[in-house]
Amino acid sequence: MEDFIFGTLATEELRRKHRHVLLNGVTHRSRRFPRDPQPGQAVQLELIVGTHWPCKQAWVYWTADGRDPLGAHGSAAMGQALAMQPSGVDWDVLEWGYISAFRVSLPAQPAGTIVRYRLSAVDPAGIETFADQGAFFAYFVSEDPLPEWARDAVIYEIFVDRFSPSPGKAWLTPETPAGFYGGTLLGIADKLDYLSDLGVDTLWLTPVFPSPSHHGYDATDYFDIEPRLGSKSDLRHLLDEAHSKGLRILLDFVPNHWSQAHPTFQAALQDHNSPYVNWYNFTRWPDQYETFFGVKSLPQINLRNPQARQHLLDAAAYWLEFGVDGYRLDYASGPTPDFWADFRRVTRQTKPDCWTFGEVVEPSDAQVAFHGLLDGCLDFMLLEALRQTFAFGRWDAQRFAAFLDRHEAFFPEDFSRPSFLDNHDMNRYLWSVGDDQRRLKLAALCQFTLAAPPVIYYGTEVGLSQERDVRQGQRGLPEESRLPMLWGDRQDSVLLDFYRQLIRLRRQESALRIGNRHTLIAEGPLLAYTLYHRSVELAAVFNLDEKPANIHMPGNWDAILLATDPALHLMPAVDATSLELPPFAGVLLKKAIKE
Amino acid sequence: MEDFIFGTLATEELRRKHRHVLLNGVTHRSRRFPRDPQPGQAVQLELIVGTHWPCKQAWVYWTADGRDPLGAHGSAAMGQALAMQPSGVDWDVLEWGYISAFRVSLPAQPAGTIVRYRLSAVDPAGIETFADQGAFFAYFVSEDPLPEWARDAVIYEIFVDRFSPSPGKAWLTPETPAGFYGGTLLGIADKLDYLSDLGVDTLWLTPVFPSPSHHGYDATDYFDIEPRLGSKSDLRHLLDEAHSKGLRILLDFVPNHWSQAHPTFQAALQDHNSPYVNWYNFTRWPDQYETFFGVKSLPQINLRNPQARQHLLDAAAYWLEFGVDGYRLDYASGPTPDFWADFRRVTRQTKPDCWTFGEVVEPSDAQVAFHGLLDGCLDFMLLEALRQTFAFGRWDAQRFAAFLDRHEAFFPEDFSRPSFLDNHDMNRYLWSVGDDQRRLKLAALCQFTLAAPPVIYYGTEVGLSQERDVRQGQRGLPEESRLPMLWGDRQDSVLLDFYRQLIRLRRQESALRIGNRHTLIAEGPLLAYTLYHRSVELAAVFNLDEKPANIHMPGNWDAILLATDPALHLMPAVDATSLELPPFAGVLLKKAIKE
Repeated sequence: MEDFIFGTLATEELRRKHRHVLLNGVTHRSRRFPRDPQPGQAVQLELIVGTHWPCKQAWVYWTADGRDPLGAHGSAAMGQALAMQPSGVDWDVLEWGYISAFRVSLPAQPAGTIVRYRLSAVDPAGIETFADQGAFFAYFVSEDPLPEWARDAVIYEIFVDRFSPSPGKAWLTPETPAGFYGGTLLGIADKLDYLSDLGVDTLWLTPVFPSPSHHGYDATDYFDIEPRLGSKSDLRHLLDEAHSKGLRILLDFVPNHWSQAHPTFQAALQDHNSPYVNWYNFTRWPDQYETFFGVKSLPQINLRNPQARQHLLDAAAYWLEFGVDGYRLDYASGPTPDFWADFRRVTRQTKPDCWTFGEVVEPSDAQVAFHGLLDGCLDFMLLEALRQTFAFGRWDAQRFAAFLDRHEAFFPEDFSRPSFLDNHDMNRYLWSVGDDQRRLKLAALCQFTLAAPPVIYYGTEVGLSQERDVRQGQRGLPEESRLPMLWGDRQDSVLLDFYRQLIRLRRQESALRIGNRHTLIAEGPLLAYTLYHRSVELAAVFNLDEKPANIHMPGNWDAILLATDPALHLMPAVDATSLELPPFAGVLLKKAIKE
Repeated sequence: MEDFIFGTLATEELRRKHRHVLLNGVTHRSRRFPRDPQPGQAVQLELIVGTHWPCKQAWVYWTADGRDPLGAHGSAAMGQALAMQPSGVDWDVLEWGYISAFRVSLPAQPAGTIVRYRLSAVDPAGIETFADQGAFFAYFVSEDPLPEWARDAVIYEIFVDRFSPSPGKAWLTPETPAGFYGGTLLGIADKLDYLSDLGVDTLWLTPVFPSPSHHGYDATDYFDIEPRLGSKSDLRHLLDEAHSKGLRILLDFVPNHWSQAHPTFQAALQDHNSPYVNWYNFTRWPDQYETFFGVKSLPQINLRNPQARQHLLDAAAYWLEFGVDGYRLDYASGPTPDFWADFRRVTRQTKPDCWTFGEVVEPSDAQVAFHGLLDGCLDFMLLEALRQTFAFGRWDAQRFAAFLDRHEAFFPEDFSRPSFLDNHDMNRYLWSVGDDQRRLKLAALCQFTLAAPPVIYYGTEVGLSQERDVRQGQRGLPEESRLPMLWGDRQDSVLLDFYRQLIRLRRQESALRIGNRHTLIAEGPLLAYTLYHRSVELAAVFNLDEKPANIHMPGNWDAILLATDPALHLMPAVDATSLELPPFAGVLLKKAIKE
């Protein structure tokens, strides 16, 4: 069965249409160089004018004082206007037309500045078209590197209602998987020793704010805690306990939308003159308004409204001040591009070493647009590659290696890309491979030997699976992949031990986190890459085939650090020139380089 | 009915496949910067490695001494090898994969050098793939600007068998349009006064070499003249007469293939050990060999063979020495890319002010690859745009203007792009518009008010049309568009006078050839652009509609220089703010700029 990850780009037809729309429009697409401007750096902005647009004049309107840039036809009403210069014309064979680019350079700014801008193209009839449907863009000028701890993190995603009841409590027994199972913040606090023992150091909690649902992605108050899950003092307790054990905690934050039950939305519905009406984008008050993908119960917040924006920014600051260590940002492509510059300023100024990464279920070019606004994005492209290669066998080693080499080269070094095999919105990896743990361990070995910080979706490490495809769940929601955590005897201790070893090795061997990765073998079902750091060389070797494979590995290797198949551990110190791998097996080899 | 110009890229499906093949391959595509290196300029070469190719190492092998570069895996057997450097990774949404680029800089060379090179990519399995199916590339380092006369030229394409019989002779009456009508070189010489009077200054003759066909694109000897058409002394006479009247003559040269009756091919067929076997690419001697688009009677010449290449180069030099002024190069995308550097050197060294342009029936990116190798290419993209807009009304003014503005920006200023409305391979423009001369004059007004040198296909200026669609012709050949020239009373003297005026104005008004063109109006069926040069401003104004149109033209205009509708000439000195244009009518306006 096909995964369905990139919903709006899932088919070739959708991709073709997406490209056609882009190449026929007037777009900026956050093409800003550098994307993450440092103090004293000038910034190049690029505008792309698609086929069939006669345009010889393009403009940028911009401010550096925080206010919105306003203007028309090259005349600024607020801030400044600058003419953009033609910077190139390309022929596009599919559109059978030319694409033009325009560029302009904005002057360097001091640290702390937010530069806001809009771009436009004017046609010979004098019609001015603003890029990306009139979007406001912005960037935050600062020296705010990715926190060091984020580079080394191993993340554990906790679906709060499904992880652990409070001490002394049992799971609830809802009638459907969409009901409440009774997981709580105190339940998490109670399991910190388990998590420490596993070795993870960062917990990402799904939303904890008041909400009518089991998942919480439809909050009614961003300044409180859902009573089913606990209280502010429970969160305080969890934070204190976690921090004392060296664990950090990230909250899940949804700036794009919230519940229709949110009091501001109810006020907007009841009174056309309510100031809250402008917190939303009503196309016909009170029954037509912008939403999250057409779901009427999830109204989209109008972040161009100053009060609504400030409300969201205040909430983000509030929980950082409360003590949390960062955010996973739900549906980060939803909010207007300029919102994120404000978000960046507020989060970094409130907690300089906080970690923020987005959920952007789009290809790399859309993800990299967040460089400088968030610390990074969850790596959906790698997710697809890992599942296609290790779960489904649809990509061979050559294709995976070609992807991976370039995927790593595409992104800036300081763009954080947490890696994952599954999450709460899709079929669990383990279920997708028919509960074949060999294929899970193979994928995990790859995940944990790449530089990006790995995420474990709760329960994966102990064999938690599901009963049916998520698309057969109620209301189309993927509750099937959110079954309660396994505890006690229900845990698969062999798999758990494998994950413990993976994490331990990741801590021990810095080459896994910061080594230079080099693809060594990528032929049919055989994949191997090496990782160098200082005097250590590691090699991750994979057999993607259902048949055993003999792999020729150049050089002599001192040890097998880890094997997905326990039998391989019995091998003596390895002359790996004739490494024999069982079906769907992989090893991590090590040698000390003689200096 | 659809035009079918870009055969291999005529449909969206073909374009998609073309793009897919390119983006999945290892290609150079003549991405060389600068494309036309001058003495002392270093040259950047780019290699594109498509999706699914794991490649971290790319090489260039090159020579500057004329010999072929040879080597493998970074080790040169002839010349030098240089490692290319990764220069970027792009995400491609349609291929759903990454595309990598590599670059290398070759050192500057002195004038007269031919640099030859090949590029390759090596995968982790050690397999080396040479770019573009192993093609050899080359460039000729020189200061050899486009000849000045070529910038000002007005070209007349003569299909030799169909233009004029020798003096005192009548047309022959073949049974089909694929037969011989009896046009000759002396016939052309006899009509030089007609051509001078028309105003053209450059004649392009379709092939004059011995050949079994009426068209001559299947020669049997590149060093002689087809007896039906005349003799060397006839060509000498024609050249002398033409030159004495200020007319230049271009021959049509086919370096890619010739007739199966060519003696070298016959020798190759008869003896497997003949040295001529290697003048062709036999895939299975003697019955399978590379051809021009699968036509067995047109074997492709193996220009990688030194003797075959020299034979072609000698022929090109021979006729330049004989006195011709340049070449139109048939199917210029056929020969290997490095052939053209030799061709450039030989033609420029033999006759420094010769003019060479290619027939490359491909989009702009393929055409511009000839920059520095030929002086330019026949402008098939503009051909399509002119026909879609002025003949068929499928493009509105906005689309045409968007195309034209960028088409002109895309090409280097010194890349010659002779413009045309039709040629001997397609339906005549006039027939395509149901012999509606309004639409022909409208398109011609546009053609002659653009900077590119215009080509008139013989007979267009006197209303020569055809009887049926070329695709209904015998053997699929477009003989229908090659009917005999009209002479005497059969000529449309009104149309002829219009063309005479167009050409006269083009000579008088330098703004038409070297002015700065600026799109003024591009709305629905209304198109206008201005042309500035020194103290003169011209405006070409078009009504593409079948209804009259009122056009608001800013500014006051002193005169209508030319109108496609004779009635418009009756207008007094124009206050063009309310220019009333009949259906499918256009005007050329002038004002002197007050300084």
